[in-house]
Amino acid sequence: MKDKNTKLWDGRFNEATDAFVEAFTASVDFDKQLARYDIQGSIAHATMLQHIGVLTADELAQITTGLSQIQDSIAADRFTWSIALEDVHMNIEKALTDMIGNTGKKLHTGRSRNDQVATDIRLYLRDRIDEICLLLRRLETGLLDLAEREVDTILPGMTHLQTAQPVTFGHHLLAWFEMIERDHARMVDCRSRVNSMPLGAAALAGTSYPIDRKMTADLLGFETVAMNSLDAVSDRDFAIEFTAAASLIMMHLSRWAEEIILWSSAQFDYIELPDRFCTGSSIMPQKKNPDVAELVRGKTGRVFGALTALLTLMKGQPLAYNRDNQEDKEPLFDTVQTVTMSLIAFADMIPEMTPKRDNMRAAAVKGHSTATDLADYLVQKGLPFRDAHEVVGNLVSRAIELGMDLPDLSIQELQQQSSLITDDVFEVLSLEGSVNARNHPGGTAPEQVQKAIAEARRKLG
Amino acid sequence: MKDKNTKLWDGRFNEATDAFVEAFTASVDFDKQLARYDIQGSIAHATMLQHIGVLTADELAQITTGLSQIQDSIAADRFTWSIALEDVHMNIEKALTDMIGNTGKKLHTGRSRNDQVATDIRLYLRDRIDEICLLLRRLETGLLDLAEREVDTILPGMTHLQTAQPVTFGHHLLAWFEMIERDHARMVDCRSRVNSMPLGAAALAGTSYPIDRKMTADLLGFETVAMNSLDAVSDRDFAIEFTAAASLIMMHLSRWAEEIILWSSAQFDYIELPDRFCTGSSIMPQKKNPDVAELVRGKTGRVFGALTALLTLMKGQPLAYNRDNQEDKEPLFDTVQTVTMSLIAFADMIPEMTPKRDNMRAAAVKGHSTATDLADYLVQKGLPFRDAHEVVGNLVSRAIELGMDLPDLSIQELQQQSSLITDDVFEVLSLEGSVNARNHPGGTAPEQVQKAIAEARRKLG
Amino acid sequence: MKDKNTKLWDGRFNEATDAFVEAFTASVDFDKQLARYDIQGSIAHATMLQHIGVLTADELAQITTGLSQIQDSIAADRFTWSIALEDVHMNIEKALTDMIGNTGKKLHTGRSRNDQVATDIRLYLRDRIDEICLLLRRLETGLLDLAEREVDTILPGMTHLQTAQPVTFGHHLLAWFEMIERDHARMVDCRSRVNSMPLGAAALAGTSYPIDRKMTADLLGFETVAMNSLDAVSDRDFAIEFTAAASLIMMHLSRWAEEIILWSSAQFDYIELPDRFCTGSSIMPQKKNPDVAELVRGKTGRVFGALTALLTLMKGQPLAYNRDNQEDKEPLFDTVQTVTMSLIAFADMIPEMTPKRDNMRAAAVKGHSTATDLADYLVQKGLPFRDAHEVVGNLVSRAIELGMDLPDLSIQELQQQSSLITDDVFEVLSLEGSVNARNHPGGTAPEQVQKAIAEARRKLG
Amino acid sequence: MKDKNTKLWDGRFNEATDAFVEAFTASVDFDKQLARYDIQGSIAHATMLQHIGVLTADELAQITTGLSQIQDSIAADRFTWSIALEDVHMNIEKALTDMIGNTGKKLHTGRSRNDQVATDIRLYLRDRIDEICLLLRRLETGLLDLAEREVDTILPGMTHLQTAQPVTFGHHLLAWFEMIERDHARMVDCRSRVNSMPLGAAALAGTSYPIDRKMTADLLGFETVAMNSLDAVSDRDFAIEFTAAASLIMMHLSRWAEEIILWSSAQFDYIELPDRFCTGSSIMPQKKNPDVAELVRGKTGRVFGALTALLTLMKGQPLAYNRDNQEDKEPLFDTVQTVTMSLIAFADMIPEMTPKRDNMRAAAVKGHSTATDLADYLVQKGLPFRDAHEVVGNLVSRAIELGMDLPDLSIQELQQQSSLITDDVFEVLSLEGSVNARNHPGGTAPEQVQKAIAEARRKLG
Repeated sequence: MKDKNTKLWDGRFNEATDAFVEAFTASVDFDKQLARYDIQGSIAHATMLQHIGVLTADELAQITTGLSQIQDSIAADRFTWSIALEDVHMNIEKALTDMIGNTGKKLHTGRSRNDQVATDIRLYLRDRIDEICLLLRRLETGLLDLAEREVDTILPGMTHLQTAQPVTFGHHLLAWFEMIERDHARMVDCRSRVNSMPLGAAALAGTSYPIDRKMTADLLGFETVAMNSLDAVSDRDFAIEFTAAASLIMMHLSRWAEEIILWSSAQFDYIELPDRFCTGSSIMPQKKNPDVAELVRGKTGRVFGALTALLTLMKGQPLAYNRDNQEDKEPLFDTVQTVTMSLIAFADMIPEMTPKRDNMRAAAVKGHSTATDLADYLVQKGLPFRDAHEVVGNLVSRAIELGMDLPDLSIQELQQQSSLITDDVFEVLSLEGSVNARNHPGGTAPEQVQKAIAEARRKLG
Repeated sequence: MKDKNTKLWDGRFNEATDAFVEAFTASVDFDKQLARYDIQGSIAHATMLQHIGVLTADELAQITTGLSQIQDSIAADRFTWSIALEDVHMNIEKALTDMIGNTGKKLHTGRSRNDQVATDIRLYLRDRIDEICLLLRRLETGLLDLAEREVDTILPGMTHLQTAQPVTFGHHLLAWFEMIERDHARMVDCRSRVNSMPLGAAALAGTSYPIDRKMTADLLGFETVAMNSLDAVSDRDFAIEFTAAASLIMMHLSRWAEEIILWSSAQFDYIELPDRFCTGSSIMPQKKNPDVAELVRGKTGRVFGALTALLTLMKGQPLAYNRDNQEDKEPLFDTVQTVTMSLIAFADMIPEMTPKRDNMRAAAVKGHSTATDLADYLVQKGLPFRDAHEVVGNLVSRAIELGMDLPDLSIQELQQQSSLITDDVFEVLSLEGSVNARNHPGGTAPEQVQKAIAEARRKLG
Repeated sequence: MKDKNTKLWDGRFNEATDAFVEAFTASVDFDKQLARYDIQGSIAHATMLQHIGVLTADELAQITTGLSQIQDSIAADRFTWSIALEDVHMNIEKALTDMIGNTGKKLHTGRSRNDQVATDIRLYLRDRIDEICLLLRRLETGLLDLAEREVDTILPGMTHLQTAQPVTFGHHLLAWFEMIERDHARMVDCRSRVNSMPLGAAALAGTSYPIDRKMTADLLGFETVAMNSLDAVSDRDFAIEFTAAASLIMMHLSRWAEEIILWSSAQFDYIELPDRFCTGSSIMPQKKNPDVAELVRGKTGRVFGALTALLTLMKGQPLAYNRDNQEDKEPLFDTVQTVTMSLIAFADMIPEMTPKRDNMRAAAVKGHSTATDLADYLVQKGLPFRDAHEVVGNLVSRAIELGMDLPDLSIQELQQQSSLITDDVFEVLSLEGSVNARNHPGGTAPEQVQKAIAEARRKLG
Repeated sequence: MKDKNTKLWDGRFNEATDAFVEAFTASVDFDKQLARYDIQGSIAHATMLQHIGVLTADELAQITTGLSQIQDSIAADRFTWSIALEDVHMNIEKALTDMIGNTGKKLHTGRSRNDQVATDIRLYLRDRIDEICLLLRRLETGLLDLAEREVDTILPGMTHLQTAQPVTFGHHLLAWFEMIERDHARMVDCRSRVNSMPLGAAALAGTSYPIDRKMTADLLGFETVAMNSLDAVSDRDFAIEFTAAASLIMMHLSRWAEEIILWSSAQFDYIELPDRFCTGSSIMPQKKNPDVAELVRGKTGRVFGALTALLTLMKGQPLAYNRDNQEDKEPLFDTVQTVTMSLIAFADMIPEMTPKRDNMRAAAVKGHSTATDLADYLVQKGLPFRDAHEVVGNLVSRAIELGMDLPDLSIQELQQQSSLITDDVFEVLSLEGSVNARNHPGGTAPEQVQKAIAEARRKLG
């Protein structure tokens, strides 16, 4: 047989068929990440088996002791993983049996690898979501501290990457807070759908042993027991939902990264990043590449890709379990890793970036950013909306002609276009006047930003 | 100018530049779907403006009357949409001003198209989610009725598309119920994030008018007011979350469609679909193509595509509003349409499909589907797990030799492999014995299926 | 029957089942775009049928005359499309039979809707690719004209959005030329795989009529005849390949759009766009939003989405034709439309954008952009690479201390760090010195840019 | 510094910031796969540098000897990779300098990591494409052998997964050949765009050294030199094109896998797979899960995901090189690995699958699969098309009534519907009659299949 295969496999593909198929189908290289959860699930399952009389107290003790030792040996990186044993479950079961003999074989009573792996992956994901939620909170806390320091700082708010109206930097930062807060809420919602126990579904139909699923679920901290065995072993919608929520986190971080990269350019020059988040150049000490932000922007693609991968994977499968599902793990693990690392990077970087307030203000002063305020002023003085717009348009044109910005025009120049304008206009045309005027919930006025920060802190508890 | 462009545009691209750019940038062709919500939002906004003194009672009356008439004319398809007026907002505002004069222009006080469109799209999506939720419930109800009729029907449960163990058809159907139920929960979670009002954010920074956002939100039924103006006009994560949830619905429907297509084939022949969901052939009257199921399977791709489109769209944008966001609507509208139509199709088709119980049973009888039960029987009689497996393997081999199925072997044949086997084995080897044995929450036993149906009905209320 | 359905369909879904399913499965709303190609294919098919004796000369004349009249009536928008007739093929066949009687029914001899639609879509796509190729060429031509005008203009080349080294604007523009040129080559490659004729595959197995496929292919300008009937009616890989090539075009245009948006900001201010590609503000006449560029950036997502949609669609289908394939058209049509419109927009806009040469140069002067040149100068004078870097690093630090840029340091300051530096250094430190030094194929020196433009023009012919 | 970070990093994120950022930004873990190509590129670069006088012959000898030794040590897995050295380039350069001293530092003259990595990745991908092309050819060869053995085997051709018309199994297999052949052509087209040399572009603008790019390109086997330095270091469209072509391969393999899974089910039972491509069950020896096919179907998603990832990655970047591009490698490497492994699996499995000819034939006999042939027969005897259809419809109905298949009806039964029917009809109604009648290029007749195989073999050479 081998000769024949060798003939078929040209060049570098010269391993024997069986070894190739073994490697092609084995999952232990990546699913060993689930070892800790596999053992946790097995101990709970064994405890339940003892409770219903399938295992004796002594057998249970042997099993839990054995599994704990295996856990220690894995944690210490002393465990030998075997591809021939295919996956994490068989590797651990074999090690247990080698250690405690036939009793080890009883552990698998009333379960199957199908419900076992579905349980492992939910335990794993539940923990990862908790970590991600903590990181989102850490990022939010740092963000609020920074926003509080910058409540009064003014920079140009942009639409179409063109200066539109002045906004406070604190207010700008709180926009990111709102996005991260929704990301957090999505993770919490997802967690509740992850937190349901498949164990007991066995291969696909349940088991003929009188198992106590409620007990196992309580031991593992599952909120609910999955109520249909066919569904429990086959669907991975919870993993897709997680990846979609993770994609939204990355989308937000990527937009933010883009902002940081823009603001770090010589052209904007609004912020200074801590050195350790950048790379430099031995030859140009002034150069500071915002590598961490660029990488986060770049890494967004792989999470979107994982979402595409998992949707494609799941879509094609009839009920119930198919081997395709082995492919659910790598995209999920990679997504967890990418989101976690990106959040650590941001949670650490954001509170340490230093705004260059003068540059921000200088940019806001330019570009006639308070023109809208002047129009509103005229409307409040009784001028119809469209007429007010025309007056302001004329004044901005005049300012451009004179090489000035709108607030620099003299009262005479201003009154030439409308006699409704009086000295109080300069307050309106000032940056502070503009931001202070937007003084309603959600508006950019420092007073509102203070309130929003207080409210946010209250939410975070 | 036109001559020059004509020269640059070869062949069929011979329209003048301005007309081309006008068409390229206009959105009214698709955003007119938002007209009803645009008017609803405007009436609420005007009511609030009157409350804070910006409009008189008479002006408000003119505006609401005018908008109601425009709404009627749109509903009756008598409204003339103009591409030159670019979008739904300007078309309606222009019609209002044409109708009631200058008062119409006051409507736009304290808002901007940026917060206006963000509000319209949320009102639209909230309504669509409610419709989708109703359809999910209708599908669930029909599914439960069918499951109840098929509590005792047995078909082969499959893993790897190979017969594994017998399951009841009612139980199999409830697997779909669980999936649809999670889809419903995701839509409900998404709705709460959609239901927050951007109005008041104006262009990006809020407005200098003393608006009462709480009042407007109450009038429009929004749960909350969006708390940051920059975020409110720029993010569309809620639309992406919806599209992700819709993708999961379609993924589930596609899997289900695949099952229906398989089961309609001559090879499976498990079900009969109502004629009107199929196409036939004049020449082969027996032929019945499951077109509706095929189309739903095919339509899944476009919803996944819309998700990719929206993630890509949003990722690239710095704060705040950019014209890119105009591109959020078509993928969203198409997703709503696709999911809604697919759910109608399934909600109507599923309860009307007729199982061919004899064929299902015949398939389950084959394939030694109760081999696992025999192993469990031996284990319960005291045989170690691995030894039990060996015995059963030998017996299945023997049955194959004799051209029989496992339950057809005589007691003598059975006892030749293990003396632990007694007459009660035939109950275990029977299909009913097998399914009845899986009698725990989530298991396939008819008793459990009855309970699960009752519980599901309780949930649906 | 209807009563029952009305009961099942709540609220707005109150149309009769049959009407719903009819609408759900009909494709004429979108596939009527193929009408011209359907008729073109039918005429060729009929001509071949006459040649092999299935039709008489008179019958052929009736058919071609009838189809031509239908074509005219469609072109003049006088044709009445019927959803009840399901698709473009049946609508046209019915119109033909209504017009010329029974002879019309003979047209379908030896073909099926399966090979007919596969042929239509290839004829359609071949034409669209030709149009797209022309547009790519038009864009390239305009780009070369602009590059030629800007051979000597200098702007800062950026890595990490940080100033790295000076480059000529002509050279920068040619980077886009190279990308568009590869996009063109991909379209040409794709066209050759589109240009193969499915007609003759009939439903899936070929036909028992003695058809002359070579003749039909010649009449329709197909290069080859599809050599396997099952493949011919079922695969749509050519449409996916097209959408992938279109995605790369849009990816390139989106990157370019991003550059245009950045360069239009007040912070960069490198270019002036023609007014008609922008929107302004009545209130801020200086404001010019680069809407067309933003929309192209935004539209990129929908083409990526169409690619996801088509890959998902095709992946799930066993051989041969399935109704899923009806869903291939909308993503394809939308991709064609989006790419075509975006290319027209760019082909028109790019040659009309005006560089602000002074701003570009001023930006290049800053940021010590010729530091690398100084290091190379020192290496060429014999200093080891690492030592040269150290010297330059010290000099840049010194310049920053003095608030100067590197070329502004005096010869004394320079020599203090290395006695190898002599007066010829200032040529090296100048922008012109830097770009001129990169004088090899692919380098930024004006001489090379001239050569590259000449070579590009030669290619375009 | 560490204390502060410890404070910010809660729980498990307790490593020092610098270590975290170092790990976050390092690429050596994955880009070490490029080592062989990095060394190959460096040797060619050094050879050119010696040619133009930048290196002495002795220096060149030291560098090439040093690099060869490093290559050996990497191949033997004796090389120590350091994350602190960030990437494959710095790891190798450092090892070289440690080995041969200062001469090692001269190697980097006239290049940058930007053009170096762009060159490495192209050399890598060119080799991988060549391997993939060989595998496609091996798969095709095995497929043709199988098709030749099955030229006369008949199975039911399906549309909508319903029996439509009989086809020969050889013909069915050749459908896959056509798809794989187009996949091969796409890889060849892609290769020509990969095979262009970026080296010489340096950081982004070219270099001031008098490099001979043509010479380096010749040494490395590159067809062309990349003609624009900015484009050369920044675009990765070739990698996306490859991933798109790979996605089409996987789409085809996934459809094929689906067919194999269906055909392995008890319901179809058309083929027998070699054991080593399946997993079994100790308890049910008859069970044979088609794991390899399921995994290939499942792995398709990750390649689609990589395509999404790379498109997203590239879209967002302004010119020229950005750190995002570091993220191009993992999706590309994973795609290469997945496609290569999947092709090996198929190339090995396909020629070894055994058709169950009797089952195929039995399925084709059922379902009135030759009804179309009967209609064609009547048309050829002069009956109008529609009338012929009606006759056949009636006859099929009659056959169903009698519980027979169409060819089993007596001549009397047949003639009752049309007196045009004579004894020669039974040849037409037979499976062989049906397939033999489709005797034109691309048709299913064994004669045509023989010709198609001969033509295919000619193409493969």
